[in-house]
Amino acid sequence: MLMADQVGVVLASASAARQNLLRSAGLKFDVLPSNVDEVAVRDALGDIDPVDIAEVLARAKAEDVARRVDARIVIGADQILALGDGVFSKPADMAEARAQLLSLKGRRHQLHSAVVIVRDDLVSWVHVDTVDVTMRDYSAEFVGRYLSAAGDQALSSVGCYQLEGPGVQLIEKVAGDYFTVLGLPLLPLLAELRQMNVLES
Amino acid sequence: MLMADQVGVVLASASAARQNLLRSAGLKFDVLPSNVDEVAVRDALGDIDPVDIAEVLARAKAEDVARRVDARIVIGADQILALGDGVFSKPADMAEARAQLLSLKGRRHQLHSAVVIVRDDLVSWVHVDTVDVTMRDYSAEFVGRYLSAAGDQALSSVGCYQLEGPGVQLIEKVAGDYFTVLGLPLLPLLAELRQMNVLES
Repeated sequence: MLMADQVGVVLASASAARQNLLRSAGLKFDVLPSNVDEVAVRDALGDIDPVDIAEVLARAKAEDVARRVDARIVIGADQILALGDGVFSKPADMAEARAQLLSLKGRRHQLHSAVVIVRDDLVSWVHVDTVDVTMRDYSAEFVGRYLSAAGDQALSSVGCYQLEGPGVQLIEKVAGDYFTVLGLPLLPLLAELRQMNVLES
Repeated sequence: MLMADQVGVVLASASAARQNLLRSAGLKFDVLPSNVDEVAVRDALGDIDPVDIAEVLARAKAEDVARRVDARIVIGADQILALGDGVFSKPADMAEARAQLLSLKGRRHQLHSAVVIVRDDLVSWVHVDTVDVTMRDYSAEFVGRYLSAAGDQALSSVGCYQLEGPGVQLIEKVAGDYFTVLGLPLLPLLAELRQMNVLES
């Protein structure tokens, strides 16, 4: 219900936050993470605008998965964190997570979230949204306590915080869309899925 | 962790959304809904600004619960939906929910969310935030399908939609804070709890 029957939708993302958002919204889909080597793609892109990195990676992931499954619709997504001139990757371990959180503290950064739909093997829709997040001036001790509370969960996203968990205690201010912070501009995506008659209207 | 020990915090709200927000954020608290007769308070207030209705009700709930428990801190909250000159109450049944959703369709409304802290039996902090929500031009059939899918859950909030559930399919646009839509301006509340040393910083 709320969704047209027999439309094969695949989400090309291993992100639990993205899966939860779409599932809670009432979309039915399968999950198949892409095999794209994100670090290699980024390195190959060189010094381009972070917005474009997010879009290229979202496209690459959706196209990769579309080649591997027989689905009418594949959704790909990517999120890039930009601080000043730098771009952050997901932390590899707790030491890197700690370093990222200390770099972000007391400052404003940007999250660029791209979402792409591949329909019948062609990219049919692309949307990128940006949100400004300001971290509060937390103490180094707080970072330590936060990371031991959050555990490996903190390594699951660039920036090491989840707005939907205790990571919200690191945040001073969010200017922009909540879903974009979570890594998926949900409202434009749902609107496009209605246009495509995947969702009822 | 992330929270100072031995501070008794009570949330004066039966709202599952508010409890989830605070729990996910890492706050520890007990729940005791107030006995305030919201309809009677509203009627007594007469024709005042919806922002003030939200604040008065949040205060009344927190003060009522503070009188009944031995807690250092009581958090009260209220949310008012305003459409044009009118103010909506929670729907009593599915017929009313349907009527509300049909009134809201294709239009922009305001959600005013107030949160209050009562500390040692005195109101020590008040915050009210407003967000604009635009509903899409959904069909009457869609409303029927949505309400049968959402069930009694749709009756749990004014406006009959939950942004964190399939209700997001009713939404065109949200301009403002996500947490305010859910009925609790979370970031300002957490900031105040840090000021009060209830949360670590």
